Amino acid sequence: MDISKFFAPEIIFGLDAISQVGESALRLGAKKIFLVTDCGVKENNWVAKALFYLEQAGLEYMVWSGITSNPKDSEVAEGAKAYLSSHCDAILAVGGGSPIDAAKAVAIIASNGGKIQDYEGINKITKPLPPMIAVPSTAGSGSEVSQFAIIVDKQRKIKMTIISKSLVPDIAIIDPLLLQTKDSRLTAATGIDALSHAIESYVSLAATGLTEVHALQAIELIAENLRESVACRTNMQAKSAMAMASLHAGLAFSNAILGATHAMTHQVDGLLDLHHGETNAVLLPHVMEFNLISCTEKYGRVAEALGENVTGLNKQDRAERAIIAVQRLVRDIGITGGLSTMGFKEEYIPKLSQNALNDACLVTNPRDASAEDMARIFRKAL
Amino acid sequence: MDISKFFAPEIIFGLDAISQVGESALRLGAKKIFLVTDCGVKENNWVAKALFYLEQAGLEYMVWSGITSNPKDSEVAEGAKAYLSSHCDAILAVGGGSPIDAAKAVAIIASNGGKIQDYEGINKITKPLPPMIAVPSTAGSGSEVSQFAIIVDKQRKIKMTIISKSLVPDIAIIDPLLLQTKDSRLTAATGIDALSHAIESYVSLAATGLTEVHALQAIELIAENLRESVACRTNMQAKSAMAMASLHAGLAFSNAILGATHAMTHQVDGLLDLHHGETNAVLLPHVMEFNLISCTEKYGRVAEALGENVTGLNKQDRAERAIIAVQRLVRDIGITGGLSTMGFKEEYIPKLSQNALNDACLVTNPRDASAEDMARIFRKAL
Ligand SMILES: [Fe+2]
Ligand SMILES: [Fe+2]
Repeated sequence: MDISKFFAPEIIFGLDAISQVGESALRLGAKKIFLVTDCGVKENNWVAKALFYLEQAGLEYMVWSGITSNPKDSEVAEGAKAYLSSHCDAILAVGGGSPIDAAKAVAIIASNGGKIQDYEGINKITKPLPPMIAVPSTAGSGSEVSQFAIIVDKQRKIKMTIISKSLVPDIAIIDPLLLQTKDSRLTAATGIDALSHAIESYVSLAATGLTEVHALQAIELIAENLRESVACRTNMQAKSAMAMASLHAGLAFSNAILGATHAMTHQVDGLLDLHHGETNAVLLPHVMEFNLISCTEKYGRVAEALGENVTGLNKQDRAERAIIAVQRLVRDIGITGGLSTMGFKEEYIPKLSQNALNDACLVTNPRDASAEDMARIFRKAL
Repeated sequence: MDISKFFAPEIIFGLDAISQVGESALRLGAKKIFLVTDCGVKENNWVAKALFYLEQAGLEYMVWSGITSNPKDSEVAEGAKAYLSSHCDAILAVGGGSPIDAAKAVAIIASNGGKIQDYEGINKITKPLPPMIAVPSTAGSGSEVSQFAIIVDKQRKIKMTIISKSLVPDIAIIDPLLLQTKDSRLTAATGIDALSHAIESYVSLAATGLTEVHALQAIELIAENLRESVACRTNMQAKSAMAMASLHAGLAFSNAILGATHAMTHQVDGLLDLHHGETNAVLLPHVMEFNLISCTEKYGRVAEALGENVTGLNKQDRAERAIIAVQRLVRDIGITGGLSTMGFKEEYIPKLSQNALNDACLVTNPRDASAEDMARIFRKAL
């Protein structure tokens, strides 16, 4: 047994939990808040609500929303400049995984200097970051509790994975009401992202007893609630369950890291600016097929958690049910077609497979994967 | 749904994890460490080992061991004096639940002043505590990850329950090797303490999706490993599993609080200076019987986690299997006899039942319990 570590932020969970932003910021010693958001026009009431509670707590603030989905290195540099000239002393991110990741990257540059490329990989951050609070508006990225930030390098056209304990926000405020503003396509994509986090972290080489319980619980909740959450924007029972699932998955992968699916989707999303959850939906079943021989027993447990009846099946057949169940879920929530329907071309494969070798997520994949292995998986997923 | 909170320390887990104390203290900015311990002569190599790693990290230290089991208010006052005159700037506790709780109480008085009675109850601590690291030598109290400290008020002859987020140590270092130095009686008692934490927090009124997974996992691990851990001091597989179980149970009850068993055992232990785990072993099945009508469904899940075959049983019968399984486990590990064999007298019952009403743990018990209810339970447990 190796020595393992587990780290989580303070978590505040519940309907209207966003009302805790002011009091939370005060507890972190903040006076002026840098609010990072991507919340669109329709959803601006969440930002307005957050600002209301900040004001009520007597806090000053500045809103910065200079980011796109899949946040870019140049946006991060701009954000850090804005943070420094604003004289803010804490960061609040409200939105999907992108603004939370962007907020983390802004925090890195504002306090450690340099450019975001300097911090790619594991534990490259040396100086403490400003206090940070994250309020997710999607149930998927898990960034509100994770040690991860994913930023696009525009020149290299890849997503950089930055992993460091200091990227775990101080406080994660999870309010399922925010999920109501997302459409079915985004709900489906982010839900499969959470499922990928849960499955990849469960079979990760760095999985521990502490991460596995969270991973399995996430899988169960997603299998039971994602379809209904996609089907109906106001089904608060399903939304709350998905918010909890994403949180469980976030705690699992933050501490157990991920695998080949993410190593590969990071390359595709970086190149084509796709929705990360949809790329995951296409690649995950193929990666699971590849990984099967390395974690047959565990995939059997995944199949059970996905609600499959595995009584009487042998180990191999149980494991295969996990893949079938994932495929069925992906299809049920309306994600169809392979990579080529997303603008992905076969000619990208050699380069992207090569780049995936350098992604920090590949290290914990349960089966050794060469560039050729990943090229083969990409081809199957076309 | 109410708003719920979840808070955990950084956790370092594994064989020889104690080697991380120096580096951990440095990360917390410490220069001189106040080491609190109850480790006896036989076990002093753990303290020596901790000191070795502190020295290796260039840290100064002072060792303080002025505590007994069930730490007393007067010992805490002495400890706080010793801490302040030592010019230490961080606290390291090495030992069972008692020295970890004592270290927390010393931290309170050293930084907040007054006497420990001032902090009885929930969230009474206002000023930040010195950085703290906890290295448990038993698998049971969960104090290394919990918001709890239990201190005896010698005059009132009760255990005071102090609950505050600031009592969660900054870093919990869990090294299953430390468990090898404990005899079978202490292993049994602390194991049942952990089981009580898991079962009470699982059915607590404050349980959430985040705490329940940890509680159930703790129950499973204890059912599968406590007997073997009691049977053999060097069975490292069982010791590691019990260390993990205690950790899961600690995360669960720290965030979901406990119930009537603990509200009652705190009174008994305070009066008679008994081992908390043994008092739990006697009272838990009787409290479960009392609580059954309030959490029948959940007790069914507890029965399954305890390894009972509940197929074909109705809801009521499944729940009852949980109680039978706990009784069998308690008996198997050699805890026999009721309260009267421990020096408890029937005449104590009215006073202790009344005192239990004021224990913070009673608030989250799933069934309303009056002093008369608890008196009845005490009588059954005689
Ligand atoms: Fe992801
Ligand atoms: Fe206890």
